[in-house]
Formats: sequence, structure tokens, C-alpha cells
Amino acid sequence: MAVPPSTYPRRLLPLFLGLFQGALLLFFALFVTYDEPSAQDTSLVANQVDSTFPFFQDIQVMLVVGLGLLLTFLPRYGFSALTHNFLLLNFSMQWALVLQGLLHHFHHGQIHLDLHKLLISEFAAVTVLISVGAILGRASPCQLLVMATCEIPIYLASEWVIVTCLGVLDVGGTITIHIFSCYFGLGVSKALFRATQQPLHPKETPTTSSDLVSLVGTLILWVFWPSFVAVLCQPGDAQHRAILNTLLAMSASAITTVVASSLLERDGKLSPGHLQNGSLAGGVAIGVVADMAMPPVAALALGSLSAAVCVLGFRFLTPFLGRKLTLHDQCGIHNLHGLPGILGAAASVVAVLVAPKDTSGSQPSQLSPAGGNASEVEGQWGGRGEGGQALCQAAGLAVAVAASLLAGLLTGAALRLPCLARPPERLCFDDSLYFKIQDQAESPRADSSAEEGALALKE
Amino acid sequence: MAVPPSTYPRRLLPLFLGLFQGALLLFFALFVTYDEPSAQDTSLVANQVDSTFPFFQDIQVMLVVGLGLLLTFLPRYGFSALTHNFLLLNFSMQWALVLQGLLHHFHHGQIHLDLHKLLISEFAAVTVLISVGAILGRASPCQLLVMATCEIPIYLASEWVIVTCLGVLDVGGTITIHIFSCYFGLGVSKALFRATQQPLHPKETPTTSSDLVSLVGTLILWVFWPSFVAVLCQPGDAQHRAILNTLLAMSASAITTVVASSLLERDGKLSPGHLQNGSLAGGVAIGVVADMAMPPVAALALGSLSAAVCVLGFRFLTPFLGRKLTLHDQCGIHNLHGLPGILGAAASVVAVLVAPKDTSGSQPSQLSPAGGNASEVEGQWGGRGEGGQALCQAAGLAVAVAASLLAGLLTGAALRLPCLARPPERLCFDDSLYFKIQDQAESPRADSSAEEGALALKE
Amino acid sequence: MAVPPSTYPRRLLPLFLGLFQGALLLFFALFVTYDEPSAQDTSLVANQVDSTFPFFQDIQVMLVVGLGLLLTFLPRYGFSALTHNFLLLNFSMQWALVLQGLLHHFHHGQIHLDLHKLLISEFAAVTVLISVGAILGRASPCQLLVMATCEIPIYLASEWVIVTCLGVLDVGGTITIHIFSCYFGLGVSKALFRATQQPLHPKETPTTSSDLVSLVGTLILWVFWPSFVAVLCQPGDAQHRAILNTLLAMSASAITTVVASSLLERDGKLSPGHLQNGSLAGGVAIGVVADMAMPPVAALALGSLSAAVCVLGFRFLTPFLGRKLTLHDQCGIHNLHGLPGILGAAASVVAVLVAPKDTSGSQPSQLSPAGGNASEVEGQWGGRGEGGQALCQAAGLAVAVAASLLAGLLTGAALRLPCLARPPERLCFDDSLYFKIQDQAESPRADSSAEEGALALKE
Repeated sequence: MAVPPSTYPRRLLPLFLGLFQGALLLFFALFVTYDEPSAQDTSLVANQVDSTFPFFQDIQVMLVVGLGLLLTFLPRYGFSALTHNFLLLNFSMQWALVLQGLLHHFHHGQIHLDLHKLLISEFAAVTVLISVGAILGRASPCQLLVMATCEIPIYLASEWVIVTCLGVLDVGGTITIHIFSCYFGLGVSKALFRATQQPLHPKETPTTSSDLVSLVGTLILWVFWPSFVAVLCQPGDAQHRAILNTLLAMSASAITTVVASSLLERDGKLSPGHLQNGSLAGGVAIGVVADMAMPPVAALALGSLSAAVCVLGFRFLTPFLGRKLTLHDQCGIHNLHGLPGILGAAASVVAVLVAPKDTSGSQPSQLSPAGGNASEVEGQWGGRGEGGQALCQAAGLAVAVAASLLAGLLTGAALRLPCLARPPERLCFDDSLYFKIQDQAESPRADSSAEEGALALKE
Repeated sequence: MAVPPSTYPRRLLPLFLGLFQGALLLFFALFVTYDEPSAQDTSLVANQVDSTFPFFQDIQVMLVVGLGLLLTFLPRYGFSALTHNFLLLNFSMQWALVLQGLLHHFHHGQIHLDLHKLLISEFAAVTVLISVGAILGRASPCQLLVMATCEIPIYLASEWVIVTCLGVLDVGGTITIHIFSCYFGLGVSKALFRATQQPLHPKETPTTSSDLVSLVGTLILWVFWPSFVAVLCQPGDAQHRAILNTLLAMSASAITTVVASSLLERDGKLSPGHLQNGSLAGGVAIGVVADMAMPPVAALALGSLSAAVCVLGFRFLTPFLGRKLTLHDQCGIHNLHGLPGILGAAASVVAVLVAPKDTSGSQPSQLSPAGGNASEVEGQWGGRGEGGQALCQAAGLAVAVAASLLAGLLTGAALRLPCLARPPERLCFDDSLYFKIQDQAESPRADSSAEEGALALKE
Repeated sequence: MAVPPSTYPRRLLPLFLGLFQGALLLFFALFVTYDEPSAQDTSLVANQVDSTFPFFQDIQVMLVVGLGLLLTFLPRYGFSALTHNFLLLNFSMQWALVLQGLLHHFHHGQIHLDLHKLLISEFAAVTVLISVGAILGRASPCQLLVMATCEIPIYLASEWVIVTCLGVLDVGGTITIHIFSCYFGLGVSKALFRATQQPLHPKETPTTSSDLVSLVGTLILWVFWPSFVAVLCQPGDAQHRAILNTLLAMSASAITTVVASSLLERDGKLSPGHLQNGSLAGGVAIGVVADMAMPPVAALALGSLSAAVCVLGFRFLTPFLGRKLTLHDQCGIHNLHGLPGILGAAASVVAVLVAPKDTSGSQPSQLSPAGGNASEVEGQWGGRGEGGQALCQAAGLAVAVAASLLAGLLTGAALRLPCLARPPERLCFDDSLYFKIQDQAESPRADSSAEEGALALKE
């Protein structure tokens, strides 16, 4: 499967992307249009733009800059991490736009594009960006694009089952996005690498400066996370509560991460990896309950707990899974998205069960499913009662895990196709395979001395 | 006091933070709740969220990313600067939330949490982040946490006296936040290091790349500063004016800093430290007068003047204070927060004295005290006249300086407790004391060569 | 013209800036004021602030942080790139504020300052920041300031002719800003360097890490570009459409850049320079048509096409122009701003010609000229018909190119004045000429080893 760098196949990527872009243009030309201007009230549209667009921009910063920087912890792979993340976001968003248009918004042969549909497609793209974390550095861009091509439709189907059919409440995408993408990524990793133990690659160890850049990415994600969770909430009270709950959970995560990391490391020093991930764990867990009626202490507790679980996962579970199941998880997505996600799903079951009864009907704002128009509801949770709704939440979790694992395994098997050009082990984690950059290996960071020499000679 | 790194005590930090987090959970469980959804008008809440939340996010970016990066000018201490800043922000915010709740918002045994209260607590936390600058790199995380524990209640008391009792106008926190935190930090530094002259540490000198990262932090702070100043203004005219004044002051600061730095350095070159700080001086000074009725030229002049004073401070005052008073000010907070703050306070006295009389009563929007509900006012400045209000502004400055210096000296003395594990001089300014990172000292930045060697052997 | 570094003249910069700042203060003192608070409805102002200010902040981030980082691809020139960009933004904005005030807003001896006027001045400053890209690294700060001094009034005149006289539609500044500044910059470069072939300077080649930082700048620009294009649109439908069109164009650009770069490079690897520029080409091109009535596919196609043209320009046109015309274009502004701009202008001609007739009169929102009050319009395009408007768009393009080239050539000739201290070739692309930083040439990036040595000796 591995090939020498000189013969590494390089024409597949532009071919694949070029064909996709052409097909997209055709699809848009045939079917996609904007709303008729006269069909809508101008001040209403202005209001929607004013209230949605700042959130949208925040989320773009998170995905393009924050997540991109977070992934640059591999010292020789920063360019690839940033660019592949950016490319996958755009590809997946466009692909999701097409599929969502066909599935949900196809009326009289036309799809009416608006900011909300772009936002929903962006949410779909997030699943790909998370899943990639499991195989970062060892997969070619073509493999990543094929993975995205498979993951988006499966995500849309799973999201439809979970939110529309089961009526699961998940405003921040904990179950539909985080858990789904985590287990999809792990499935891909398992099927792609099979039983081969991945040895520690010499380029895999972060340096101080790559770790620092990655931490800046974490901080950017940390700051804007409330926008991600709250953007799809009903404006007003529910959105206000979602923002507050997310802020509390993330704040608790930040502190608990320091506590847990310091306690778990033998010499009491903090591990950069723990900080980069644990600080965000609260945001993953809180998504599913962010707009529910629960006391502030629950958000704090959930944030603390999920950070602790995340750090414990890095310390014990990841090595364990690597040894026992030969499961390779490069970025530790199971610790950041899987475990806190399950914790959040469990919390949502509890939150639904203990929800105050007298508020039923008075809070329709809680019923804003991510990714669809809020259908007419009768009473709280469509009249299905706490027990029923709690069961639904659990069923949603089960569906997300099962569907993603299965689909991930199948996708991972497909990625073993030789034509997808998996990079040879020697060239993993190395930008120079994909980018026309100075080969760091030859003059490691001392690029300046060569230049100076040239200059000295010249004068 | 200093201990060898192998025996450096490391269990205090998680213990302290863990206990605090537990107590916080208990406090929240007992006393903190959200507003009843039915108690408020939904569209009103939506409006408040729409108008406050973007400002709030801007401020979070400033504190977490901007200030964090600004502090990474110490080349080996970037990880600590970024993480300690992040940790202190969260800790101080939570601690301020508790104290403010108890002091101001405790009704019928309950504290109703909302975005505004979180914002006010964040403002309180800013004081800690600024004060830390005086002792950055020479204090342990435990010392910083104890300092935060002491500073927050004193800040709340001082802010209450200045704003509520004295009726000082200070919408951007120039007196209550910047001046207070500056002299608190200097007091701590004086009491902590006493008369020991701090020798220049070899790791203390910024490198080009650490200076560059720090400058990026400055630019982020510079961009979002208007949000910080204007967030607590009355929406409408006062807020509009506060934004404009801040923009003008910061723009003038940027240019004057270049002028001053170029004139003061012997060879006419610009000093990175001047740029990093001087560009922000206008924002510090303008806070106290930002929403007052004054002509735009006043904002420009104040911005220019404060930048000049800041650069002069770096060039002459800091070395002078270091020699004469053995006062150690690592980040030069006296030049960025102290001197421009005093300038701003003086400007507010003038602005109050020359304020047009015919507008009294027509501008209640100016009377929005930071950190409290605007109490009922009769006429302008509660009917106390220009002279009275000018005296109040001066009194507020005096209270802020006196209270903070005294409290800082006491706090600094407390930080000398041996159990707080002040780092030994040899390990100051060094991430490796607190973080599990590759020891840069052994293979300075040539990490890649070792890796390459390993790779070469393998193949 | 070139001088040895020891005698490099350094007093001109503070003198020039100091005089300018003094004159600005005088001008503001005499003529600039805020609106009377009572003259406006408070909730109206609040609304304007709420809807404009987030856009304004986004644009500030783009210009100060995004563009600043993009320009740091020169490894030894990061400090200068970031600082000069910041300085020029502030200087040009203030200068534009003065000139615009005198030309457009001078009523009864007074200029009433508001956020919109600051925004318009910031747009004027953008032209300077773009033009500088042509001569980055080889010009002194004084030369850049003189260039800004010349460019701003010419821009204002050209913008007035294009938008107000010709009635060109250009909401995102494609013609007025991007094309103008591109050809102005090229003219300056041509006249400044004349027929001298600029040899490849040893410090000119980006390193991996400087390229990475530059890519982060690109991503920040990419994320916030929709705010730049849409800020001056009429709120509501037109703004919504402008945002969507920009998002689509930029997304298509991102993918097409990867395709084109991979196809054009011999070994199929991606070129960092292509990614840094091509991803933004769609944003340049879409500006002029962003709020017009056109199908979404047009935005996608325009984005794709302009990215392809941009990458082709880097691969073929820039080397060709360098050889044949000895035209030096350091950042490739012709590929990012010139070619996509022309493409966008051509697209606007087509868009006007094929615009649906039945909507005439129903979309006055399209007629919001950048930089001026929307004058009363009768019917669509002031009743001048598709053909007339199409001609206008073409005429606007011609005016922008001709005026900027001519003015640029004259300005460039002026920059050859010896007193402006063009840096000697040996010191081009080097921060140490302007900043008091450690000389990287002496100890290239191994600053730490010296420190360590000092530390070892001490202990």
C-alpha cells in the first residue's frame, strides 16, 4: 500500500475535487436559488441576519482557525493539518448542502438557499472534522475526502432518525455530532489500520512551540463554544440559558482539567495534551442539555465531570485501547468527544426525568431540534411524558453509537483501496509529502544559517 | 524559600483548586438559580442577548487569547503565561460570582444568574490578570491563586466605595479596574521581593519570535478594546460615543507610540516592548471619560498623551523605580495601566468641570455605573454640581490607589509563606517547572535533529 | 540612494508622524464634533450600533490581525510587516477621515463624526494596505507613509468619480478598492524600482513556520470576508444575499485553489503561496456583484474562476511580468486583487445585462453605493437601463485602472527622493533595520544556546 515518495500518486486529488466542483456547479445551476426578495419582509430578514450572523462568524472562527490550530500539535504537520481541515470543511459543507437540499428542502424542483441552511450544512461538516482526528497524519487527503463523502450522508440519515423520528432533544449536537463523529472516526481508524500496532513515529511528538500553537487553538475554541451550542436555540430565554450553561460548564472544565492533570501525572506537572482537550470537554457534554430547565449547578458539575473523564481517558483508556484493541486514536477524539458526549447524553436522561412538571407547555422554546424546522408540538415533548422522553434520549445515544461505528468500519475498509494513496509510514506526519516547502529534515529549523551563508558570499 | 526542582511541592495546586471547585458546586447547589422563564418577556431577553453577547465574546477573546498572547513575550514561559492567565481568569470569575452574589444579589436566599452578572464577574477577574503582570515568571501558580483570592474581595469593596458611595463615573473601568489592579500588583511585588534587586535572568530576554507573538496579542487587544469600554454603557448615544472615543484614542496611541519610541531609543529603532504596550495606553486612559460629553479632539489628545507617557515610563520610570525602590515590575504594568490610568482620571476631572451645563438632565445615559444597577438620579450627577463631581472623581482615584497599594502590600507579604512554593531563581521563567514538555534547555530548538537521527537509525 | 545601516537616517519617521498627529489634533479641535445627543432618536442609534458594530469589529480583525499575519511570510520581516501594516492603517484612516470630512461632510464649519464615517475611512485605508504589498520589504516606513499620503486623496477622488458620478454598483469595493489599489501599487513599484531586475534576496524565501503564520492570516481573512463585503449593504434582503454570495464564492475558491495548485506544480504538491492567496480570490471578485440579483451558481462559478486565475497568475503571469516588464510584485497583489477584480468587474457587466426586468424598482436596496449617501433613485439604476448600467460598470473599471496606474507611477517617482531613506539592498527584508531586536543574523534562532551558556556559567 505504501509507495516511495517519488512515485507517490498526486493526480487523484485534483481530479476528485475538480469533478466534484463541476458537479456542484451543475447542481446549483439546475436546482438552487435564493428566495424571491418580495416574498419576505425586509425587516424580518434584517433581524434574522443580525441575530444569526454573529453566531455564524463565531462558528467559522472556531472551525477554520481554532480547530485548525488545535490540530497543529504535530510539529512537522502543521501545514497539512491546517489545510486539510480547511479543505474538508469546505468540501463537506458543499456536499452537505447538496444532500440536505435534496432530502429536506426540495420543493417544486428548487432549493431555496439561506443562511440557516448554510449553517446546518456547516454543522454536518463538523462531524468530518472531528472524525479525521482519529487518523490525523497517517491518511492521505484523498482518503480524507472519500471519508467525508461517506460520512456526510450517513450523518444526515442518523441525524434525521435521532432528531426527527425519535424526537431526541440535542440543541448543541452532543449526540448527533460529537458522539456520532467520534465513533465513526474510531471505526474508520480500526478498519484502516486493522490489527497493526502503530509504532510511535519520531515526528509524532509535539514540540513546545507546536504544543503552544495548539493551545492557542484550544483557547479560541473555548471562547466561541457558547455560540456553537446556542446558535440553534430559540432566541430569548432558551438561548440565554444555553449560553450561560455553556459558559459555566466550560469554566468548570478549565479548572478541573488542571486539577486532574496535576493529580494524574506522576510528577504533578501539567500535560499540554490534557489542557488542550480537557478544557473543551464541558462544551461537548453540555450541548444536549444546554437549553433544558436545570439548575446552574448541574452545568458546573457536568463540566467538571466531563473534564475529569477526559483527562482520565487520556491517561488510562487510550493506552489501554491501543494495547488491547490495537485501536489508534491520534488526537484522542474518544476522550474529548466520546466520553464527555456519553456523559452529556446520560445527563440529558436525568434532566428529562427530573424536569419540573408544571412548566410543561410553557417552554416550547426547548423544542428546537438542531437541523430542522420545529414541528408543531403538543405539550412538552410532544406529549410523550418524562419516561418516554428519557427513553428517547437513551435510544438516540444507542442509534448514534451503533450507526457510526458500523458505518465507520465500512468506510475505513473502503479507505484501504490502494488507489487512495495512503502515505508510507516513513512520510507520515510530514508536510513535505503534500506541500512545496523547504524540507525541514535537511536543515532543521536552521534555514537561516544557509541564507546567511549565501548573503555573506555575495558581499 | 527556594527549593530544588525534584522536591518542588506540587500537590498544593490541585488540592487548593479541587477544594475551591467543590465549595463552588455546593454554593451553586444551595443558592444559585436562573430566572423563571415566565418571569420575563422573551423578546426583551432576546434583545438583551443580541446586544450584549457580541460584546461579551469580544471581551472573552481579549482576555483569553489577546492578553494570553501578550504575556508570552518571555520565550521559555509561553505555556505558563497562557495557561496561568486562563486558569486565573476562570478562578477569579467564579470567585467573583460567588462574592458578588453574596454582596449584591442575594434575595430571599437565592441568586439569579444572568449574562450581565457573568460579565461583571469577568470585569472583576480582569484586575487579577493585570496585577499578575508585575510578578510574572517569578511566582508559582499557588501564589497567583492566593493573590486572586485576596484581590477579588478587595476589588469588590473598592469598586463599591468608588462607584456606589462616591458616585464616580468610570464606565470603562479606568479607575476601578486599571489603576486598582496596577497598584495592587506593584504592592504585591514590593512585599514579595522586598529589597532584593532582581538580577536580569537569562531567560527573561524576549526573542524575536516571542516578541512577535506578543505583538499579535497586543493587536487582538487593540481591536477589541472598544467592546470592553462600551459594553456597560447605555445603549444608544452614550455607547456610540464611547465606541468612537475609544477608537480615536487607540488610533492616536498607535501613532504616538511609534513617534515616542523612535525618538527615545538612541538609534531611532522601535522597541517591541513600547509597541506592545503603548498602542494600548489610550484604551486604558479613555475608559473613565469615554461616554462623557467631550469633543472628539479630547479623545485623540488623551490617546496621544497616554501613549507618550507609557513609553516614557518604560524608558525612564521603570529603571528608576527598579534602582531606587527596588520595585520589580515584570510587564511594566505601571506604564500601561498606572500612568495612563492616572492621566485618564485627571482628564475626567477636567471633563466634568467643563461639561456643558445646558445638557444636565438630558443625558442620564452617562450615569451608568460599571457594576451596579443605575440608581435613580436627580439631574446631572445626582445634583451634586461640576465641582462636587470633579472632587468625587479625584477622591475615587485616591481611594483606588490607597486601597490597592495597602492591600497589595499585605497580600504580597502573605505570598511569602513557604508553603506557597515560590520557584527557585534558577527555574524562574521556565515552563518546564510546571509543564510536562520537552526540556528546551537540553536541545534548544533543535528538537528536530534528534528526531531525524532516530528516524535515520530506524530505516 | 542606499546608505550603510549605521548612518541610516532615522529622525524623519517620528518627525513626519509627529507633525501629522499635531495637525490632526488641530483639525479635530477646530472642525470635528459629535452629533448632538438630543438630535437623534436613542433607540435608532442603538439599532445602528448593534447592526454595524459587529461588522466593524470583524473588519478590524481582518485588517489588523488577518492581513498583518498574511504579510509575515517573509521570515525575517514579520515584525516590520505587522507593525507597518498597523501603522499605515491608523495613519491612512485618520488622513482619510480628514479628507472625507473636508470633501463630503463639511457643513456649517463642522464635521459630525459617527461610526459610519470611521468605517468609510477604514475602507479608504484598505487601499494603502493592499498597495504596499507590491513593494513590501524593500521600502522604508517613510516611503510607505508618503505613499499613503498620496494614495488616499487619489482614492477618494477616484471613488467619487466611479460611484457618485458614474453610478457604478460596487458594494464590496472590487473596483473602487481592490483594482484601484492593485494598479496603484504596481505603478509605484514600477516607478520606484524602474528597470532594475530585483534579484532574489536570500531573506526573501519563506520558511515553513513563516508560511504557516501567513496561512493563519489567510484563514482569518477568509472567515471575516463576508463582513467586509456586506457591511455597507442595505440591511435585510440585499445584505443577506451579499453574505450568502460571498460565502459561496469563498468556499468555491478554497477548493479550486487546491485543484489548480496541485495541477500546476510539477510534482503535484500544493504551494503555500497559492493557498494563501487563491483562497481569498473569490472574495475579491464577488464584491462588485454580491448584492445583485443573480443565481447562487454565479457566485460559485465566480469564486472558482477567480481562484483559478489567481493561481495561474502566480505560476505564469508574475514571472512573465518580472522578466518582460521588470515589474516587481512582492506579494503578488496583481494575482489576488488585480485579476480577480477584473473578473468581478466583467461579471458585474454580465449580471447587469441579464438582470430580470420585472424587479426593476422593487430592489432599491441594490443601489447602496459604498462610501456615500444613497441618493434618490428613480427606478432601477437611476432609470438608465441595462445597457447604460453595463457601460457604466465597464467605464468604472477603466477609470480605476487608468487613474491608479498613472497616480501610482507619479507617486513611485516621488518615493525615489533620497531623503525618504530607501533601505540598502543588503538590509531589505530585515526587521533589525527598524526594530530593536536581537540580531538574528548573528545567532540564527539559536538564541537559547547563548542564554543557556550564560546560565551555566552563573551557577
